[in-house]
Amino acid sequence: MTYCLGILLSSGLVLASDSRTNAGVDQIAKVRKLAVFEQPGSRVIALLSAGNLATTQAVVTTFKEGLGCADGGCDLDQAKSLFEAARMVGQVLRDVLARDAEHVKAVGDPSAGFLLGGQIAGERPRLFQIYSAGNFIEASPRTPFLQIGETKYGKPILDRTVSFELDITRAAKAAILSFDATMRSNLSVAPPIDLLCYHADSFSAETKIKLNNEDPYFAALREGYGRGLLELVDGLPSPPWAEGRPSHSNAEPPGSDD
Amino acid sequence: MTYCLGILLSSGLVLASDSRTNAGVDQIAKVRKLAVFEQPGSRVIALLSAGNLATTQAVVTTFKEGLGCADGGCDLDQAKSLFEAARMVGQVLRDVLARDAEHVKAVGDPSAGFLLGGQIAGERPRLFQIYSAGNFIEASPRTPFLQIGETKYGKPILDRTVSFELDITRAAKAAILSFDATMRSNLSVAPPIDLLCYHADSFSAETKIKLNNEDPYFAALREGYGRGLLELVDGLPSPPWAEGRPSHSNAEPPGSDD
Repeated sequence: MTYCLGILLSSGLVLASDSRTNAGVDQIAKVRKLAVFEQPGSRVIALLSAGNLATTQAVVTTFKEGLGCADGGCDLDQAKSLFEAARMVGQVLRDVLARDAEHVKAVGDPSAGFLLGGQIAGERPRLFQIYSAGNFIEASPRTPFLQIGETKYGKPILDRTVSFELDITRAAKAAILSFDATMRSNLSVAPPIDLLCYHADSFSAETKIKLNNEDPYFAALREGYGRGLLELVDGLPSPPWAEGRPSHSNAEPPGSDD
Repeated sequence: MTYCLGILLSSGLVLASDSRTNAGVDQIAKVRKLAVFEQPGSRVIALLSAGNLATTQAVVTTFKEGLGCADGGCDLDQAKSLFEAARMVGQVLRDVLARDAEHVKAVGDPSAGFLLGGQIAGERPRLFQIYSAGNFIEASPRTPFLQIGETKYGKPILDRTVSFELDITRAAKAAILSFDATMRSNLSVAPPIDLLCYHADSFSAETKIKLNNEDPYFAALREGYGRGLLELVDGLPSPPWAEGRPSHSNAEPPGSDD
């Protein structure tokens, strides 16, 4: 499995991916799932992948090497907008699946999904989620984050803390906590976390970070959150009825079975 | 969907279920998913259900009405241990699926799962998870909670706060927070929450509670947790590199692509 997260902010983007890939529990490896296509000063496009590793690598490498795309259909430097870049990724994904899916289905799931985020000069920062069918949706101030892969464990902390108007620093912190929650509850997601904090109108991917478990900031954040959460829960009021016979107004009458 | 949770404690059990059942998003209803079989003074057995509603109701009602079980195979009062009760539930589930599954598969998924928790005089409190295949596993001090249904959103808070030695009051609080996280992030789980706090050796299901959104304790806990979590995250240190060019030791060199 995999976990990738993109957060769209008024001040930029926070994009993050884990590094675990596995076939069953025996064959486990680390791979990079965050690829950056950058033209400093004019465009930054990041592509985060989840799903079948052969499929996602075929798509990403096609864009990196421009293979078999004489018409410019896989040169992200030619995309006039992030929308067009998302369409190009969806099309290359369809091409890869048209070539491979029938062969792969006999032994596993060939499908894959992507997050595509970044900025092209003339546009604001944008964020898309590309489905395995090649179609896609776009994040907005009302839907400021998108997730692919093992998404559920890390969603509650985002639902509580993330909004479009959050600053990049706080959004990066929330993203790391979302990954920490996922990695604590699920073996299929693991560090290092690749993290790109993109500042609007910088047209530079300079804040690209790799977080290992040993990273002092990551360790301090994890430890502080874990301890703080225990203190928070401990300090909240206890159920008035849990210790014995409920005098509580919503106690159930005997035999109640509505 | 559904969310049911059982927590095994040295001092008893906390069992909880939501009330939403749905077929698609149009046909939504509230049902009780927690059934209690009680012989005050000698046994309390609670059965929590997830999955196909026709399947789970057929199983629970079979035990309530003792239908078609002349050999005592569906009288939980006859079970000599919780292990035997779990085997009886698994067998009735297999019987129901043998009768219905082929007919249902054409239109939907007939499968179902259960949590079975309680205490029979002579034993300690025990907790089992019964799979749709009719086999089952038991909770233990090392695996003190079991979940069925929409389990992922509510797992991180449990992973951080629940242990076998926790007292019932704190475990009930953690259970409610786990349901709150799930209901905030997912539409398929909804109140009221049915909650049974079973105190070891009480052989009584007297602390059975129904929590609606309007319940003052539930509202105060939700509000306190939401506010406290925002304050906690806000008070944690910010990433030292998120605001601009990283001077951080794990900043990626340009072109790095390991």
